[in-house]
Amino acid sequence: MNDVDSDVIVLGAGFAGLAAAQRLRSAGCRVLLLEARDRVGGRVMPGELAGRTIDLGGQWVGVGHERLSMLAGEAGRPLLPQYTEGQKLLAAGGRQRRYRGLIPPVSPGALLGMGWALWRLRRLQQRVSAAAPWTAADAEQLDACTVAQWRNRNLPTAGGRALFDVATRAVFCVEPDQLSMLAFLHYLAANGSVEALTSTTDGAQAATVDGGMHALARHLAEPLQAQLRLSTPVQAVDQDAEGVSVRADGVTYRARRLIVAMAPALSGRIAMQGISAAREQLAQRMPMGSVIKCQIAYERPFWREQGLSGEYVGSSAVFSPVFDNSPADGSCGALVGFIDGTEAVRWSGQAEARRCAVIDSLVAAFGAQAAEPLDYVDQDWIADPWSRGCYTGVPTPGTLSRLGPALREPCGAVHWAGTETAEAWCGYIEGALNSGERAAAEVLEAMA
Amino acid sequence: MNDVDSDVIVLGAGFAGLAAAQRLRSAGCRVLLLEARDRVGGRVMPGELAGRTIDLGGQWVGVGHERLSMLAGEAGRPLLPQYTEGQKLLAAGGRQRRYRGLIPPVSPGALLGMGWALWRLRRLQQRVSAAAPWTAADAEQLDACTVAQWRNRNLPTAGGRALFDVATRAVFCVEPDQLSMLAFLHYLAANGSVEALTSTTDGAQAATVDGGMHALARHLAEPLQAQLRLSTPVQAVDQDAEGVSVRADGVTYRARRLIVAMAPALSGRIAMQGISAAREQLAQRMPMGSVIKCQIAYERPFWREQGLSGEYVGSSAVFSPVFDNSPADGSCGALVGFIDGTEAVRWSGQAEARRCAVIDSLVAAFGAQAAEPLDYVDQDWIADPWSRGCYTGVPTPGTLSRLGPALREPCGAVHWAGTETAEAWCGYIEGALNSGERAAAEVLEAMA
Repeated sequence: MNDVDSDVIVLGAGFAGLAAAQRLRSAGCRVLLLEARDRVGGRVMPGELAGRTIDLGGQWVGVGHERLSMLAGEAGRPLLPQYTEGQKLLAAGGRQRRYRGLIPPVSPGALLGMGWALWRLRRLQQRVSAAAPWTAADAEQLDACTVAQWRNRNLPTAGGRALFDVATRAVFCVEPDQLSMLAFLHYLAANGSVEALTSTTDGAQAATVDGGMHALARHLAEPLQAQLRLSTPVQAVDQDAEGVSVRADGVTYRARRLIVAMAPALSGRIAMQGISAAREQLAQRMPMGSVIKCQIAYERPFWREQGLSGEYVGSSAVFSPVFDNSPADGSCGALVGFIDGTEAVRWSGQAEARRCAVIDSLVAAFGAQAAEPLDYVDQDWIADPWSRGCYTGVPTPGTLSRLGPALREPCGAVHWAGTETAEAWCGYIEGALNSGERAAAEVLEAMA
Repeated sequence: MNDVDSDVIVLGAGFAGLAAAQRLRSAGCRVLLLEARDRVGGRVMPGELAGRTIDLGGQWVGVGHERLSMLAGEAGRPLLPQYTEGQKLLAAGGRQRRYRGLIPPVSPGALLGMGWALWRLRRLQQRVSAAAPWTAADAEQLDACTVAQWRNRNLPTAGGRALFDVATRAVFCVEPDQLSMLAFLHYLAANGSVEALTSTTDGAQAATVDGGMHALARHLAEPLQAQLRLSTPVQAVDQDAEGVSVRADGVTYRARRLIVAMAPALSGRIAMQGISAAREQLAQRMPMGSVIKCQIAYERPFWREQGLSGEYVGSSAVFSPVFDNSPADGSCGALVGFIDGTEAVRWSGQAEARRCAVIDSLVAAFGAQAAEPLDYVDQDWIADPWSRGCYTGVPTPGTLSRLGPALREPCGAVHWAGTETAEAWCGYIEGALNSGERAAAEVLEAMA
């Protein structure tokens, strides 16, 4: 058993852990960054489609994601606007229709109902703070309500409800009956609005990174090579008066402070001593969402020739939403989309059948030309042992109001990072960066 | 790395794992029983109060707990009826009152409201099966509703709601806003009714075991000494065509089949290969309840002299419910009670302050004589690293309806036991025995 001493150990080399380690290193700390996977990036992960590097995980830069935009600039990676030219497709109520802009082609009644619901949500989210949703005046009441119930009370038509559910699943990767209304409003407050969360140009899917988001993780990791241990899953953390001991495969690492830069559901799987009951319970009450990200390459972006943007939403489709993900050089066409919520649980572990279902879904949406892809690749995040779901940990009812402060409250020498703990943009890469910087600042202050 | 071969490995030597191993051994299987703790019994655990052996965990035999009663008979351990003579105490709405029987001394309006709510619950629970609650006609709707919301709609008075919450916390160790209505009804269906769950003589707290419940765990374990490895926490489970490999502290154990006899939240912390997405998600969505069990010894059971049974419920008390737990020989007096739900999270990790709060609570309930105990002991189940909460894993909204079948559905060569998976009496020791026998039968059939 070797003893390796540092000032600070960071667990997890996703964007949160990388940002924290970077900040600490810049401040002159001896940092050690331990990562279970054989790569950096966490829920951002590179893959290959038709010979081209793509993102199997997080890929978009949203409007307002300033840290991430700046990072792309530093890394010399241009942001590529999400392709949005042409008409979008909406399949709902047994029909498929084309439309432009934000207003989907549904019945005036459904539209009115949705408009009213969105107005209500905007009003409600103003009561909830992005940094501390548990301080809302009616936090307990909102947290006792599932999103499904709010939807039933506030959306009068079946069509409106179905679209609302598609949007909820697309954003949270859980079903509306699994999600607390307070957690829902918190996410809206932290990320703008339902419209911003589900939009491309003006929202959370505004741009991608030239060369892939993973290039930014590598850029962050570059100056940390000497501090980084890959393939080093941690089994246990002990605390004493001098600091922490971290055990990983027979080696014990010592440090004065520890930053756990992982989703709560994952950090809860490490045997950690000295953790508060509230944090322990929180870790059991923020399950990861369920999602499979699928990408399909074609010889050409043939949908563009039909005047379509490639954006598709189907209220009863297995594979929805879908976006154009073709390379900027036009060398081929590509679509990217998601199987989310219960459907993702159902299709996990059925790689071949899933591929067929996705292609079938694209044929229904874009026509026969979709039947013959050049290449197909998907990433089942539920089956990933170091993620156990994506995009994020989603608080169940009665969690955020009762245990929310435990998200960031240090437990002895253990500090918490990860996008779930972000004071702004939680759930996004921007939130991960925000959380890593905040945790590093906490540690620097504690050690000063 | 040694390889040890068995027919079946059982993980967890609580009542479920012991019952499974026992049954398999009787059928002639080579069984290996691995337990992380240094003792058998799981959530049943012995302790000492005023020199006498007591149960720091599960202690009661309920009406209808036939397997458990039979086991006590086999072990030569008489069942001791829970002491109930005299009047009960109820503190609610700022007043404390004495009463007898099942009907608490609350206002006629509150009583009427409670009567109606209990009648509604009896009707609703008939729609839900103890073995397969997800098959209920309105399972999704019930699962989208928290118990807090049902309470708000069905209990008109604040006093009635407060009492309902006390009962919910006492049974589930979670707050009503953290609990799905389907899960609530499932528990009622599996265990009789709200009245049965919260009653002594005719209910779930009818009797205790002479010498302590833990004596029954030891009795079950006795013929399994050669098969049992204590202090052997398992890190990983792999599956291949021949069976399973179980890794525990550098040793690999091989078997044809595996029974995981642990709460889902705990089994989810072992790196298991070949587990379905539904089981993986389920394990993230059944957090353990929060409870601290406290026991206090006095020279005499002085409350009996005041005509009191020792049973106490306080709608805003830290420490409630409380029961008489005095030894049958009358050598001293003893009370047992619980801090549950959010209060347990709050008092976890504050051993000394907690003791004072409990004694203060007893003084308020039983008078000044309660101020000077002979002895005090408590068990914080949240802080127990091999339980991480008690009594049981409680499904969050949207879990049982969508993922419930994964409770028992085997994943390759991996079978599931534990009281959470029981087809009857789930949450109780009786359910643990039931689940262990069922899992053993499954394995025997699969290997036949």
